[in-house]
Amino acid sequence: MPDDACERRAVARLSRNVSETLTWSAPRKEFLKGKLSPRLRLRRNGGVKNFLTLAARDSRGSSSVAIGDVRLGEHEDVVLICGPCSVESKGQILSIATIVKESGARILRGGAFKPRTSPYSFQGLREEGLRFLAEARAKTGLPVVTEVMDPRDLTMIEKYADCLQVGTRNMHNFSLLKEVGRSRLPVLLKRGFSATLYDLIMSAEYILNEGNPNVVLCERGIRTFDTAARYTLDLSAVPILKSKTHLPVIVDPTHALGLREFVPQMSLAAVAAGADALMIEVHDSPEQAKSDGNQALTPEIFAGLVPRLRAVAAAIGRTL
Amino acid sequence: MPDDACERRAVARLSRNVSETLTWSAPRKEFLKGKLSPRLRLRRNGGVKNFLTLAARDSRGSSSVAIGDVRLGEHEDVVLICGPCSVESKGQILSIATIVKESGARILRGGAFKPRTSPYSFQGLREEGLRFLAEARAKTGLPVVTEVMDPRDLTMIEKYADCLQVGTRNMHNFSLLKEVGRSRLPVLLKRGFSATLYDLIMSAEYILNEGNPNVVLCERGIRTFDTAARYTLDLSAVPILKSKTHLPVIVDPTHALGLREFVPQMSLAAVAAGADALMIEVHDSPEQAKSDGNQALTPEIFAGLVPRLRAVAAAIGRTL
Amino acid sequence: MPDDACERRAVARLSRNVSETLTWSAPRKEFLKGKLSPRLRLRRNGGVKNFLTLAARDSRGSSSVAIGDVRLGEHEDVVLICGPCSVESKGQILSIATIVKESGARILRGGAFKPRTSPYSFQGLREEGLRFLAEARAKTGLPVVTEVMDPRDLTMIEKYADCLQVGTRNMHNFSLLKEVGRSRLPVLLKRGFSATLYDLIMSAEYILNEGNPNVVLCERGIRTFDTAARYTLDLSAVPILKSKTHLPVIVDPTHALGLREFVPQMSLAAVAAGADALMIEVHDSPEQAKSDGNQALTPEIFAGLVPRLRAVAAAIGRTL
Amino acid sequence: MPDDACERRAVARLSRNVSETLTWSAPRKEFLKGKLSPRLRLRRNGGVKNFLTLAARDSRGSSSVAIGDVRLGEHEDVVLICGPCSVESKGQILSIATIVKESGARILRGGAFKPRTSPYSFQGLREEGLRFLAEARAKTGLPVVTEVMDPRDLTMIEKYADCLQVGTRNMHNFSLLKEVGRSRLPVLLKRGFSATLYDLIMSAEYILNEGNPNVVLCERGIRTFDTAARYTLDLSAVPILKSKTHLPVIVDPTHALGLREFVPQMSLAAVAAGADALMIEVHDSPEQAKSDGNQALTPEIFAGLVPRLRAVAAAIGRTL
Repeated sequence: MPDDACERRAVARLSRNVSETLTWSAPRKEFLKGKLSPRLRLRRNGGVKNFLTLAARDSRGSSSVAIGDVRLGEHEDVVLICGPCSVESKGQILSIATIVKESGARILRGGAFKPRTSPYSFQGLREEGLRFLAEARAKTGLPVVTEVMDPRDLTMIEKYADCLQVGTRNMHNFSLLKEVGRSRLPVLLKRGFSATLYDLIMSAEYILNEGNPNVVLCERGIRTFDTAARYTLDLSAVPILKSKTHLPVIVDPTHALGLREFVPQMSLAAVAAGADALMIEVHDSPEQAKSDGNQALTPEIFAGLVPRLRAVAAAIGRTL
Repeated sequence: MPDDACERRAVARLSRNVSETLTWSAPRKEFLKGKLSPRLRLRRNGGVKNFLTLAARDSRGSSSVAIGDVRLGEHEDVVLICGPCSVESKGQILSIATIVKESGARILRGGAFKPRTSPYSFQGLREEGLRFLAEARAKTGLPVVTEVMDPRDLTMIEKYADCLQVGTRNMHNFSLLKEVGRSRLPVLLKRGFSATLYDLIMSAEYILNEGNPNVVLCERGIRTFDTAARYTLDLSAVPILKSKTHLPVIVDPTHALGLREFVPQMSLAAVAAGADALMIEVHDSPEQAKSDGNQALTPEIFAGLVPRLRAVAAAIGRTL
Repeated sequence: MPDDACERRAVARLSRNVSETLTWSAPRKEFLKGKLSPRLRLRRNGGVKNFLTLAARDSRGSSSVAIGDVRLGEHEDVVLICGPCSVESKGQILSIATIVKESGARILRGGAFKPRTSPYSFQGLREEGLRFLAEARAKTGLPVVTEVMDPRDLTMIEKYADCLQVGTRNMHNFSLLKEVGRSRLPVLLKRGFSATLYDLIMSAEYILNEGNPNVVLCERGIRTFDTAARYTLDLSAVPILKSKTHLPVIVDPTHALGLREFVPQMSLAAVAAGADALMIEVHDSPEQAKSDGNQALTPEIFAGLVPRLRAVAAAIGRTL
Repeated sequence: MPDDACERRAVARLSRNVSETLTWSAPRKEFLKGKLSPRLRLRRNGGVKNFLTLAARDSRGSSSVAIGDVRLGEHEDVVLICGPCSVESKGQILSIATIVKESGARILRGGAFKPRTSPYSFQGLREEGLRFLAEARAKTGLPVVTEVMDPRDLTMIEKYADCLQVGTRNMHNFSLLKEVGRSRLPVLLKRGFSATLYDLIMSAEYILNEGNPNVVLCERGIRTFDTAARYTLDLSAVPILKSKTHLPVIVDPTHALGLREFVPQMSLAAVAAGADALMIEVHDSPEQAKSDGNQALTPEIFAGLVPRLRAVAAAIGRTL
């Protein structure tokens, strides 16, 4: 993988110098025809030259991405990434980390910086929250994924985290994408809730193009006319993204549904659809959560779900 | 079930006499809160009285619906409903019916009346197509599902079919819903491609309210902004519909995706999500199909998929 | 126009006999490129032949359609089509018809058959409602537009109405489209709330193809993620439809908004966008309406709006 | 206005200290009921206290916002904000600025930092582009609006611009919103292409809450299922936003349509709907533009449109 990544990057660097001669319509049309060509056509000095896009799947097949010592990818185990929506206190995150690890989670999630629709909602514990996450890692051994919202916070977050999450509302924040593209940490890129799959791949391309080859794509629900759930989980994104890119693809059923009751069935479906990992919110007292409490699984429900996820993974020839 | 159905119907008949005093906003609000109340509030003569909606899930749990001798429902086997998009010739339908039966399908589908966006597209073989379907049933023993588009065709179709399909473009055709509600045959009601789940349940209610208790709900993809697939398959509809109604819920991944390549993964995901049946298009020479050829599975792909579907069904405790 | 209409129809009849050789993808691609070609490419007997679609705009420019003695079209006055959502009683419709005529309306609307999401909502007065509409016409001279939902009701409705409305939920009811295509009355075809403009034009084509050249297209709001209004009024449909078809294009702001408060501004905007008519609900006691009362204008608001509509029409060089 | 703004801000500061006790669901429900209450309910120390949101309309009516010496607002002239999509060269921006000023534009727009879906598209001239914009202002007297994408660029942009634009892809970039909220310059906030109106108002609230009272809201098209135009221009946003907030509301028809052909009619409609300004792209040689050339008006089309816009403005009682 390292060699391949270098080659991909070299070719893209070339393209960046002549970027203004490319139009997005070309690959988009090919994308709609059913496949994202691994080659964009580059016009330079009057000539035409093919080159690789960095995200496109080609003969080398799929990549895997390491978060701490846990690898995500098509040829790896299916991984459970669990934790609360927000880090609320040291006791809370230590307790939840211990609980989810016992049930089978291998990566810890938790927000220290929270993007909220209203400025009057809880905005996160910031650096204090990061410290608590690092303590939870020290205690449990679980690597930590947490969200970055502002390029200026990146250096601080890199001191504590094992993976940087770019949230759904920042998928088109190109300044942030470029900045995490220069980080040594892997990036978990969430699909914008109204981004096409083409948009998502192009946002990954921003990160890859800065030299960071470790990008994980995450489907988390899109905005549609239906109001029964919070968003509409688009599970077909999993096989489609996998056919067009070499990147790991994971699913966050919690934020898509917004309702605890339906998270287990959609988690099972996501594994069956081929997701390389699931990101599931678990909270030890959801009714007291400072954000999104009614969507988090209780530890008991989560513990009961894991064996069923294992069975579905086995049914499609994978382990979890 | 028969007694229950009568009771439900009696209550609804009552409501119909006083229908103008009800507003849909009441149950819709409750629906959005996370549960469709089995009781609508009825205001009559200044008083308020609760009564049952016919589709709502209550303490009696789920229903099962028989198509020919095959039962669909939460406590039944997961069923495969297969066949071509359109009936094109006697040879074609007999051949495909034999092939899909051998691979494990238990119900035959095929369109004799085709709703097409353009009046210049192939509109179906009509009664000739129905006769071919009946011959295929005679040969294979598979019961037949076929679409009805016009109330005036119903008597003819009832002579040949075992189940009436109301298509996505007719989910809000209330005249047709009432007409199939008076049929002795079960009805497979497809979700409108821009119908909310509440809309779908209310359309089922039109059928149930005419006295036909045998309604199967079918998720088949909704229209969203994304253009990677033909529609966005909303698998969360499966657990949500099951929590709110007692009716069987099935999934049609073929029309949702519109691309053969991704149908297998979404079929596996649909079973994992709890679908009671899958409707999958299979065509023995897709490249020559008169409609929607690039979405049908080949017999080989279908035969390879069935054991994987069985494994996922087993993983969640069901048989197929 | 009559000669043109005959010619258009003759060509389409030709196409119908060979319909299975056409695929919708061809004109759709051209539509997306920015223009609907007036010529579909017809492959027959191995050759390729161009022919006209009936709805497409060509060098002959726009058509006008007569409803009673009122003409709708690009070169006609902007027309106001007003009345209540449902006909509720003889007194109600006579009173409203008189009021809206005095303020400037030239066509009367009112539903006798009502498509309702729930079977327990008011379904309309049916033939009694049609009789009341005819009485209102006799009293005021206003021609009458009313909705047809079932092909079997058509003969009855034709006895009373001057124009047949096909509602948003029936835009894809192809049986109904064909039936009104054989009527002598003009057809007001509402856009399905999730129909693309291409879908709408193809549904018009179903009517034109049966020999009825008098079709009026109506934008009435589409389903989107936004919930501030009932639907999202897509006014860009007006210039786009006019550039691609020769048919009159009108706007129904009432059903789009669902809120009386915003109907006046959107009516003004619709005239500025080039609408050939507006369909506006007016009710003399909205708070007591049996359906959709909170969206109808009061007679006072409507009377105040008309002079402002006239001023905007004059500003773009039209009369109202 | 200054005193009012201070009062509003003081109250919001109060709320920020206790922000974690508020949930967004409360005002959203009120918003859906048809009005955004100017008062959020604040629970603190077990008690409940009402306070103002900063964006909400109340008895004080509308605000006006000054960009350079041009005022935008309900009681001001309708303003034309014109220029190219991107600043491409000094000659280009000086030429276009002169042309649009002559035709009636009062504010100059042009992008120096360009958010692009693909990293391989033209990304803008950056500071050089800002210098060219300042030269165009020196020559023509037109104040300048330009986009800011990264909080770290703000100080530089403030040296050249008269108004900061936050683009559609950054409407949920809360770090950026807070940063421009601390600027002395007014902010033109574009609606996210899949943001509800409630989301848009809450993003404005982020800016207002930092102490910057000068926010202009801009409707620029939303993502829907329809593909005839690039986005669906939601003109009903104009009266709805005006009824719920005191902020100026403007419309960008160019980016919504993406097709030059339909921009004039939608500009007329936007003025009729009550827009306080229009943002229209004009390019002197659109076919050679480095971005979005097929949507810009030519100088000739623009010059012909202005008198028609004036006539519609006059028809609704405003000047332009």
